[in-house]
Amino acid sequence: MKLVHDPIHGYIELDEFAVKLVDTPEFQRLRRITQLGFAFLAYPSARHTRFEHSLGTFHLAKEIRRYNPEIEEEAVYAALLHDIGHYPFSHTLEGLFPRHEENTVWLIKHGEIKDVLGENNSNLLIKFLKHPVVSGDIDSDRMDYLVRDAYYTGAAYGVVDLERLVRNLIFTEGMLVVGEKGIMAAQNLLLARAMMYPTVYFHHTAKIAEAMLRKAVELESIGLEEIRTMDEIDLVSRLRRSCKNEVRELMRAIDERRLYKRIYCSGRELEEKEVMKLVEELEGEFGHLALVDHPPKPKYEERNAFVRVGEEVKRLSEVSPLVRSLVELKNVHWRWCVYARRDVKDEVEHFVKRLL
Amino acid sequence: MKLVHDPIHGYIELDEFAVKLVDTPEFQRLRRITQLGFAFLAYPSARHTRFEHSLGTFHLAKEIRRYNPEIEEEAVYAALLHDIGHYPFSHTLEGLFPRHEENTVWLIKHGEIKDVLGENNSNLLIKFLKHPVVSGDIDSDRMDYLVRDAYYTGAAYGVVDLERLVRNLIFTEGMLVVGEKGIMAAQNLLLARAMMYPTVYFHHTAKIAEAMLRKAVELESIGLEEIRTMDEIDLVSRLRRSCKNEVRELMRAIDERRLYKRIYCSGRELEEKEVMKLVEELEGEFGHLALVDHPPKPKYEERNAFVRVGEEVKRLSEVSPLVRSLVELKNVHWRWCVYARRDVKDEVEHFVKRLL
Amino acid sequence: MKLVHDPIHGYIELDEFAVKLVDTPEFQRLRRITQLGFAFLAYPSARHTRFEHSLGTFHLAKEIRRYNPEIEEEAVYAALLHDIGHYPFSHTLEGLFPRHEENTVWLIKHGEIKDVLGENNSNLLIKFLKHPVVSGDIDSDRMDYLVRDAYYTGAAYGVVDLERLVRNLIFTEGMLVVGEKGIMAAQNLLLARAMMYPTVYFHHTAKIAEAMLRKAVELESIGLEEIRTMDEIDLVSRLRRSCKNEVRELMRAIDERRLYKRIYCSGRELEEKEVMKLVEELEGEFGHLALVDHPPKPKYEERNAFVRVGEEVKRLSEVSPLVRSLVELKNVHWRWCVYARRDVKDEVEHFVKRLL
Amino acid sequence: MKLVHDPIHGYIELDEFAVKLVDTPEFQRLRRITQLGFAFLAYPSARHTRFEHSLGTFHLAKEIRRYNPEIEEEAVYAALLHDIGHYPFSHTLEGLFPRHEENTVWLIKHGEIKDVLGENNSNLLIKFLKHPVVSGDIDSDRMDYLVRDAYYTGAAYGVVDLERLVRNLIFTEGMLVVGEKGIMAAQNLLLARAMMYPTVYFHHTAKIAEAMLRKAVELESIGLEEIRTMDEIDLVSRLRRSCKNEVRELMRAIDERRLYKRIYCSGRELEEKEVMKLVEELEGEFGHLALVDHPPKPKYEERNAFVRVGEEVKRLSEVSPLVRSLVELKNVHWRWCVYARRDVKDEVEHFVKRLL
Repeated sequence: MKLVHDPIHGYIELDEFAVKLVDTPEFQRLRRITQLGFAFLAYPSARHTRFEHSLGTFHLAKEIRRYNPEIEEEAVYAALLHDIGHYPFSHTLEGLFPRHEENTVWLIKHGEIKDVLGENNSNLLIKFLKHPVVSGDIDSDRMDYLVRDAYYTGAAYGVVDLERLVRNLIFTEGMLVVGEKGIMAAQNLLLARAMMYPTVYFHHTAKIAEAMLRKAVELESIGLEEIRTMDEIDLVSRLRRSCKNEVRELMRAIDERRLYKRIYCSGRELEEKEVMKLVEELEGEFGHLALVDHPPKPKYEERNAFVRVGEEVKRLSEVSPLVRSLVELKNVHWRWCVYARRDVKDEVEHFVKRLL
Repeated sequence: MKLVHDPIHGYIELDEFAVKLVDTPEFQRLRRITQLGFAFLAYPSARHTRFEHSLGTFHLAKEIRRYNPEIEEEAVYAALLHDIGHYPFSHTLEGLFPRHEENTVWLIKHGEIKDVLGENNSNLLIKFLKHPVVSGDIDSDRMDYLVRDAYYTGAAYGVVDLERLVRNLIFTEGMLVVGEKGIMAAQNLLLARAMMYPTVYFHHTAKIAEAMLRKAVELESIGLEEIRTMDEIDLVSRLRRSCKNEVRELMRAIDERRLYKRIYCSGRELEEKEVMKLVEELEGEFGHLALVDHPPKPKYEERNAFVRVGEEVKRLSEVSPLVRSLVELKNVHWRWCVYARRDVKDEVEHFVKRLL
Repeated sequence: MKLVHDPIHGYIELDEFAVKLVDTPEFQRLRRITQLGFAFLAYPSARHTRFEHSLGTFHLAKEIRRYNPEIEEEAVYAALLHDIGHYPFSHTLEGLFPRHEENTVWLIKHGEIKDVLGENNSNLLIKFLKHPVVSGDIDSDRMDYLVRDAYYTGAAYGVVDLERLVRNLIFTEGMLVVGEKGIMAAQNLLLARAMMYPTVYFHHTAKIAEAMLRKAVELESIGLEEIRTMDEIDLVSRLRRSCKNEVRELMRAIDERRLYKRIYCSGRELEEKEVMKLVEELEGEFGHLALVDHPPKPKYEERNAFVRVGEEVKRLSEVSPLVRSLVELKNVHWRWCVYARRDVKDEVEHFVKRLL
Repeated sequence: MKLVHDPIHGYIELDEFAVKLVDTPEFQRLRRITQLGFAFLAYPSARHTRFEHSLGTFHLAKEIRRYNPEIEEEAVYAALLHDIGHYPFSHTLEGLFPRHEENTVWLIKHGEIKDVLGENNSNLLIKFLKHPVVSGDIDSDRMDYLVRDAYYTGAAYGVVDLERLVRNLIFTEGMLVVGEKGIMAAQNLLLARAMMYPTVYFHHTAKIAEAMLRKAVELESIGLEEIRTMDEIDLVSRLRRSCKNEVRELMRAIDERRLYKRIYCSGRELEEKEVMKLVEELEGEFGHLALVDHPPKPKYEERNAFVRVGEEVKRLSEVSPLVRSLVELKNVHWRWCVYARRDVKDEVEHFVKRLL
């Protein structure tokens, strides 16, 4: 057994099998995948990585299982591995490649992790990646990242009574539901998440840098096979050494924090076709100097958090008016934007206005 | 100048005049008025007093004024003195006597504080007790108590980014409004408050003890003139030494935490008359062994928190769906209850059922 | 099982037997015994009580036993009860009465606790009060109070890695020794303690108030039989209502924080006889207006903290030069003092100078 | 003015001039220089960078100046820039290149920073890098890094009462001395530092990885001109792409955390000549598979911390036996070691034993 010191959970115990998984190159790569992408450009101290987060998620999954021993042990190791598929700068590149969950599956099937697990167990573990302990609305993943992201950004919004929540999660009929005494803590978790979105996760500074990086990766034509196992050092050094001027320029601008400016932002929904057209027109006119950032609408899956009141299982949103109102928030914070390099700001603004 | 060390604010600076006010018997009495009444029966560590809270409120008021120098200095001293009228165990006895705000005014007019202030200034300061810096929906009072109560109970709900809020409060046209960059912090403050209510402030254990104390004070026929300047030692020792059996018994039961049991609870609204009748009937039948606890409905004054968006001043509830939904919460958590001593639990239950 | 929320340890689990002990009047009395005596006059927020501390000590003892199951269960309940003998304002009155440990034994033998324990178990438990888990140099008592006192005063000195220490305490040959990986944490505990002494525990403001209270209790001729079960409300209300002017005056001065002034302080050792003479002379001349405070020298028992290095058990002071140097500190901070009421300050000063 | 949110100091205010300095490529490079080198291999969450630390140092310097307005403003900007010369992985490569302070001077003279400052001011600022506010025994640099490193590692040792210390630093006769009320806080700072050394800064896991990286850089023959402006991405990607097998192998082993093993460690002092011989012999026999790590003895400059007691300025070590004993600690924790790749562990061990 090995002990890892962690500012969030104190000491995290890794059993022998967990140590073997952690000691694979795929898992060690997570040390070089920033948890919050470019959030550090707005919150300089947000430098934590998927590595610590994965250990923390494992720890909480184990704690939840301690109170619910009928949960299969595999779910706990699935919690450990659930994020190994993240690309450099976490969610940044998911617009260009399949979602990181698919890459997690691929790496478990093809990496050294498979040697540790054996083929049968690999397939079994892949199934457990969907287990509610690691992939529900109130799960070990979300519990860890909220508290951790709050700690590292210094944001006041992510303080959650993890111990109370863990003690009041009940695994029943294949679901992880919140017991009555945990309702406030669960509500607090979802509220914390709702407040972290606009202040941290969707911070416009990070959004702009992410759009710039996406453009650079696109121009560099990096393929899925390459990106699967790249860490941030591979990717950034590749872009810095690109033979394309535009790519080097974009990367350098990110490195030196000379970010593009927001030209236009809107909460109005666009059809796929409209987005495509906008992208094309801007690209035709300005090339890499103007970028469209049209993120997918966030799914606040609050509707799928369940609580047990007496003998009944209900949706948390039924019980809590606050959680109910979180649904409304979606439309408040979602935005698509156009960014442009400072020197062409006015031209792009003019062009966009004419276009819309 | 004097420095007071405080776990919430670090160091609190008291200028010479503040020291004089703090050094009066009225202010020192606050050291013996528990901030959260009997909450310590549920949260043993909630032993902080109105004294620390008053210093903290003063400190925050001064900070707000630092960013808004047009606020009159008197408002800051009003913040210091705003709670000196609290009766023993804070809000517990407000059902029997005038609200503590009235007692604050009385003590400023009649105590040694008047000698420090002089008559003119006393009257002036009394007016400033209503100043938005100390008596609004987002004010130094609330900012201090939420964070402090969370710290001392260990509750995870009261973490608020005080610095961000202070830096973004704008005093304008006689109002203290929240600037755009403070909206999330303000929303968080109101959410924190909404979560502290059911978990801490309305904790049923504290509620029962409070009802028991109210009964004892009522039976002991303690008058307003007496209670005005009593601290908790005066009151408890008086009740312990009462010549009435019932009073001594109630006080001892509180001391030894042998609390009455909840017999009945309901969120249904009753008319004043109905409450009176219920009280009388129960009293007639069971004397001090059964108690009706019909608290006033909490005023979540969220509606009166204002924000400045661009040049416009709006209600925070207009801007934030979460704050809007706090209004609904009122009806979720408000309850009136009947409590009874354990040995007559069944009889009282039976009696109440027949009655309703 | 019952869960108690605690800002230091998160949730403290009380088993059924612990609940029975906690529900006795003797244990509930601890809610009205301030942990740090009059330290709150210097650190207003230091209002925590022996009650929370006792629960925390119990919790840590249980944790230590979890890693050392050969420790008898009785030691854990001894940890729960170890402080029930404290007099009002904790150590303040130990100069006038037997040490609180003796009163703990008396209360276990004569209180309702005996009814819960039964006679045999009472005697057994009394023996376990000396168990190293609760009464060593590095034990659950000290681990709890340092961290708790730091939290409530806001002092930066009491931060200790409790989890690391707990995980590295080894119960062997009737001793609780520190394993190699816990040495830094243990050293830190002793350093923290050494820094809490001058800044908090020996803060001169508290010392003066304590000397004043001792004088009042002495003048009031309160006997051991009375004080044994008194809480702070009993004592203070008794002194406030004394028929002796001097007693009422002293108590009122404490209540209003009009404290005596330090006239003279010295680290020079006096013989018992000299102290007696000084006390008598001052008393003869000034009565209760001048007080001698000659505290016992603190025993920094650092010498008796043991560590296991390899197979060998050594003194911690052998291994750590820092711990070794703590011994020197004793003489740096110990002082005896003379205090006097402000209005006779000069006369007393003059008198003392002539005398010495 | 710009506000940066920081978990340690709350909000850091950057004035317009500071923003200009921060916006240079040299300063932005610090975002990619890990504060604690390879400590993250032992403490996974220690991912903070010189960037945040530099902002924090600037903030504290400004705070110190607030209480000592006679300090020249240049000292505060020197605090901001004091670390821009750090090489990748902070102190790791200082054995191969001039100390980072020299590189700081070079970058101020040759980088874009010079364009911001102008030539005269550049030279002036370089002088202020030696100012006691940023380069003393108790200075803004040390105050920031201790608290920050403790926060990010989760170590309990770095908690320091920064506010008390800042309020009690006195700039007098060109020195920054500690006022009487800050002595405990200053002592605590030095103790915290002394405990961070063995637990974090000298953690053997980090030491091994650092020795491996040094070897790789040496084998790759990277010159001073190159390393001056490299960030960690430049360096690591260069080593990964080396044409030398040994270099790629070393870098990969670090990336995958397959670290060399400790073969031998000793606190015995060696002469330069002896070290050279040992290095040569091992290299001759084992090439890059065995490494000698002979770090310079740490200078605990505790002797140069000064306090003002009354009118006199004294060394802190004169006043505090604990600080005095820190000097002894040097020899306790200093070690030189031999490391080897796992598969040649036994051969190297055998060889070293024969040699010594």
